[in-house]
Amino acid sequence: MTMSSYESLTTESAVSLVKKLGLFAQSESLSCQEIGDGNLNYVFHIIGKEKSVIVKQALPYAKVVGESWPLTLERADIENRALRLQGKYAPDYTPKVYYSDKDLAITIMEDLSHLEIARTGLINGEDYPLIAEHTGEFIARTLYSTSDFAMGPQEKKKLQNTFCNPELCDITEGLVFTDPFFDADTNDFEEGLRSDVEKIWQDTALKLHAAQLKRLFLTSGDALLHGDLHTGSIFASARETKVIDPEFAFYGPFGFDIAHFTANLFMNALSRPESRREPVYAHIATVWDVFNREFTRLWKEDNKEAFARTEGYLKWLLADIFEQATGFMGLEMIRRTIGLAHVKDLDGIADTETRLEAKRRSLSIGARFVKERRQFSTADELVEAFKEGL
Amino acid sequence: MTMSSYESLTTESAVSLVKKLGLFAQSESLSCQEIGDGNLNYVFHIIGKEKSVIVKQALPYAKVVGESWPLTLERADIENRALRLQGKYAPDYTPKVYYSDKDLAITIMEDLSHLEIARTGLINGEDYPLIAEHTGEFIARTLYSTSDFAMGPQEKKKLQNTFCNPELCDITEGLVFTDPFFDADTNDFEEGLRSDVEKIWQDTALKLHAAQLKRLFLTSGDALLHGDLHTGSIFASARETKVIDPEFAFYGPFGFDIAHFTANLFMNALSRPESRREPVYAHIATVWDVFNREFTRLWKEDNKEAFARTEGYLKWLLADIFEQATGFMGLEMIRRTIGLAHVKDLDGIADTETRLEAKRRSLSIGARFVKERRQFSTADELVEAFKEGL
Repeated sequence: MTMSSYESLTTESAVSLVKKLGLFAQSESLSCQEIGDGNLNYVFHIIGKEKSVIVKQALPYAKVVGESWPLTLERADIENRALRLQGKYAPDYTPKVYYSDKDLAITIMEDLSHLEIARTGLINGEDYPLIAEHTGEFIARTLYSTSDFAMGPQEKKKLQNTFCNPELCDITEGLVFTDPFFDADTNDFEEGLRSDVEKIWQDTALKLHAAQLKRLFLTSGDALLHGDLHTGSIFASARETKVIDPEFAFYGPFGFDIAHFTANLFMNALSRPESRREPVYAHIATVWDVFNREFTRLWKEDNKEAFARTEGYLKWLLADIFEQATGFMGLEMIRRTIGLAHVKDLDGIADTETRLEAKRRSLSIGARFVKERRQFSTADELVEAFKEGL
Repeated sequence: MTMSSYESLTTESAVSLVKKLGLFAQSESLSCQEIGDGNLNYVFHIIGKEKSVIVKQALPYAKVVGESWPLTLERADIENRALRLQGKYAPDYTPKVYYSDKDLAITIMEDLSHLEIARTGLINGEDYPLIAEHTGEFIARTLYSTSDFAMGPQEKKKLQNTFCNPELCDITEGLVFTDPFFDADTNDFEEGLRSDVEKIWQDTALKLHAAQLKRLFLTSGDALLHGDLHTGSIFASARETKVIDPEFAFYGPFGFDIAHFTANLFMNALSRPESRREPVYAHIATVWDVFNREFTRLWKEDNKEAFARTEGYLKWLLADIFEQATGFMGLEMIRRTIGLAHVKDLDGIADTETRLEAKRRSLSIGARFVKERRQFSTADELVEAFKEGL
């Protein structure tokens, strides 16, 4: 991929492209709007008489700082290939891909604008009754299907080799696993939290646990992860759930995706009045139930591992996934509170004292999940610990 | 790499090649002998007046079964690139590479015929006073230098991606981690061991541990391993040690190489009279001392991990490596006794009852190392357990 063949799309050239591809008739009158709110991609929403599509183009730099922060365009290719695989294993929960161009870093996909970003809905009091069931199925199916168990080690190694994603992993390694535990420039926290944050920087035991979990993230290649599965990466309605934006996809530890989804639900619970928390707790129990159920079903249905029927193996594996996920969950709660990338659930709490209190809970509950991850064995126990920490 | 460009060397074409490369003068009279005793490679030993070289060519099939068992020639490229990296990080213990040709699967390297294969020497009563010190340094340096700690995660991921070695890993996954625990066709054991072997096949607890260790081998990418570091992969003398044949090289768990070296020393000890075992026990203590010392030195000297100075991290990591290595050690002892590839140390014991007894010890001590790997924390404890098992 050379920069010379890359050209930024405009609303005009995006329209020309979808017509050239036959997605719309040449004569059709189309509306086209750039709706990207991130700073890494252009997102064009193209609407015709009977259908609509999304044209997403990765930018070779971070838009917010001009052209000064170069980023690999390969992430568009990673995202496109991850979407196609996720679409194969979890078609109901993955946007359809109509076209992709590696050189131009373009993916044309299903328009999901009839749905809402789940984080926004959850903040506004939506409960999305099926979101946990669907996300649990998505995670179990995409992870199991790309693991040694489903693919066999040879095929899996070859697939793993096509998802080396060093630059985007570097972002996670820094922002999730490292910077929040040191006085790093990327950190961003309210002055009212300074003493809590300094306690974290001095908490050697917590840092040792973070280092252990980071090592797992750096070295453990269980399955093709989404890699950034928070509630902002999910489009939802009362009936539908679609997981988007897998540009962080790579082969990592089984527990990572479900941990991030669960952690973001816990942070949403922190933003709700007590009377409105039960549906979120129920989602946390459900996503784990469904993940375990689906993973177990797939394990029994199709498994290339000779030890698959060795007594205790699946039980041990699910317990291992739960333990590492509990740790990853805690790290996500900490970094979303004091690191570079925050969540609106917490930042959006208007009253300062309430907001600081919620953030302190996020930090202390997160730290407990990290340190005591070996002591928990069910999602209900996590919810209990969360309530104790309030 | 297409098969069309591949051609098997003969003694004549091997001589032409080294002359064409200028390793010898055109006019020089050279002796050339094919000395390969394996069935996977040709090995030509070319001797001139003042120097000599080894020309190794990978065969595209297993020689022993004619052309019916195709094997990837890429292993020659893996071996060549692994040798060059090991030569960079542990030059004293790695044969020099003079030339390589990927299409012809050829590596031309230093002649080590003044040394002896360590397994043969150890069986014949040699002690090689420096072998454990040298091998410990080799393992610590090659592993540490290719890990996240030394390279940083981005460079490491890129290097890891060039050492995807699915076909040779498949051999290890089958022969070391799987087949010995099932009634598989590849197994090969003396009829006198049948009841011991059947006990292994029925030992659910042992099989669960084997499955856990196999998962680590399948998913854990700590560092570029040699991948087959037994005493038959080491050339030695009283003063020199060279580690050869890294065609199984891939990114795997830190504990694997040292485990195989240690396990093969334990099996050599089983073949010796009691009065001759102490030097082998001393090697086992030394290789671990040196590995820990060197790994620690490199860790402190040059470390890209932000948590490197977090109290307890190095200690935890070394303990984790020791635990996994103890498990891998036990698996190696089991598979070398009842699996496809045996060791001459045990098979060469002439008296049937003595040999069967030694093999039973290898199985029972191996099983204990696998099952109780979390209970050991020093090499001395392993040696004690070994003596208890005699």
